[in-house]
Amino acid sequence: MSGPVKRWLRFEHDGRVGFGVLGDGDIVHEHAGDMFNAPEPTGLRYELSRIKLLTPTQPTKVIAMWNNFHALAAKLKLADPAEPLYLLKAPNSWLPAGQTIRRPRCEGKVVYEGELGIVIGKTASGVSVEQALDHVFGYTCANDVTVADILNRDTSFTQWDRAKGFDTFCPMGPVVATGLDPATLTVTTILNGEQRQHYPISDMRFAVPQLVSLISQDLTLHPGDVILCGTSVGVGSMKPDSLVEVAIDGIGRLVNRYV
Amino acid sequence: MSGPVKRWLRFEHDGRVGFGVLGDGDIVHEHAGDMFNAPEPTGLRYELSRIKLLTPTQPTKVIAMWNNFHALAAKLKLADPAEPLYLLKAPNSWLPAGQTIRRPRCEGKVVYEGELGIVIGKTASGVSVEQALDHVFGYTCANDVTVADILNRDTSFTQWDRAKGFDTFCPMGPVVATGLDPATLTVTTILNGEQRQHYPISDMRFAVPQLVSLISQDLTLHPGDVILCGTSVGVGSMKPDSLVEVAIDGIGRLVNRYV
Repeated sequence: MSGPVKRWLRFEHDGRVGFGVLGDGDIVHEHAGDMFNAPEPTGLRYELSRIKLLTPTQPTKVIAMWNNFHALAAKLKLADPAEPLYLLKAPNSWLPAGQTIRRPRCEGKVVYEGELGIVIGKTASGVSVEQALDHVFGYTCANDVTVADILNRDTSFTQWDRAKGFDTFCPMGPVVATGLDPATLTVTTILNGEQRQHYPISDMRFAVPQLVSLISQDLTLHPGDVILCGTSVGVGSMKPDSLVEVAIDGIGRLVNRYV
Repeated sequence: MSGPVKRWLRFEHDGRVGFGVLGDGDIVHEHAGDMFNAPEPTGLRYELSRIKLLTPTQPTKVIAMWNNFHALAAKLKLADPAEPLYLLKAPNSWLPAGQTIRRPRCEGKVVYEGELGIVIGKTASGVSVEQALDHVFGYTCANDVTVADILNRDTSFTQWDRAKGFDTFCPMGPVVATGLDPATLTVTTILNGEQRQHYPISDMRFAVPQLVSLISQDLTLHPGDVILCGTSVGVGSMKPDSLVEVAIDGIGRLVNRYV
């Protein structure tokens, strides 16, 4: 949690996959080894504009929270949950910054949900709230895209994983920022240049240490895994050719077009 | 779908991962290359008892169906669903044959659900019902282990992914069998030597071609991905030290102990 903020990213260049730290002047300083454990600089540098961004990590799973912000719960008249309520984002939904969110084959309203993503850095199984942050590498921006109309159309089974699991429905990035205090962060979502969401992470029902600790009681978390913290008020639908941006000061700006 | 039945498995031996065909006398004939695309025999053979089984494939995702058998729907008075209803099994739940299903840290009844697993062999996106079986590699046995008491304890959110996502909660294997007609198969689950489930795959609401086609409209399916077909009547709870077997004639017998 302490130390200077660093912004890590993964990229492809000349058919090769690498990772590095984003520095001044949008120069990427390549590193080698394990991003989560003492990576070493290679000495190679790249201009950000000349590399192709990948998702900031290669998760084994992306877990997404539901009903984790007091402001949204109040608006929807939802009770405070007694425990973290979560679902999984299918791997085919994971998408790098800058790439296109594709309209699904089905009908229905498609909504953005700007969110903070917690990136795990150390295997976590049954960790305490006090130990939890030692297992967090950093934070990223995410968009938990959802076909809202699918969720409740079967009255016997809420189709969470399907509604949120379409190809390209989980943009993440552009970087993982380390050394931040998540409680100080604010998530801003901008649709076609217009601010639609602007909410503080401090409003979470379950804060970062609680989320990591409680989820790790059930599911072992691995380095690179991502927990999406849930969204707050201001969710809205995207029309074809919308540009959606999820910006978190201290991390960066995740920009994707929806077509 | 035609051709002789072959039984493929993945294994670890002397710290090396390999795969092969299970032949007469429980001899594994190692192959190399891509299991899904013209693998070649290496000439090496192993006794099954001397290798450590792995999950039969390395999926990017495991999709699990809910309410897909007429007999169970009738018993639970559930309506026939209009479309496949599914969730995701977390990667930390995937478990090879022979390994131990571990009791979770939480309280609550833990149940077995014997199921047929469809193993994808070719990338499938938006495939028709007619094309669907061309994208299926074969079939495996699976146990969709679930903490039943967690599912509905929050009235606002059914906790499917959590209840079914605990570490070791998705045994699969021991093999993927190719060249079978799934409509002829029967799933038998045996708890501590006593038969608890015995149901025909022909009772499915959505048969294999429909499942693959319909799911592929939403989520791109990749080689190695698994679709668990859902379970039927006879689900029951496991006590510590239970031995649970999911047997499907033509495929094999998946045996795991619950501790």
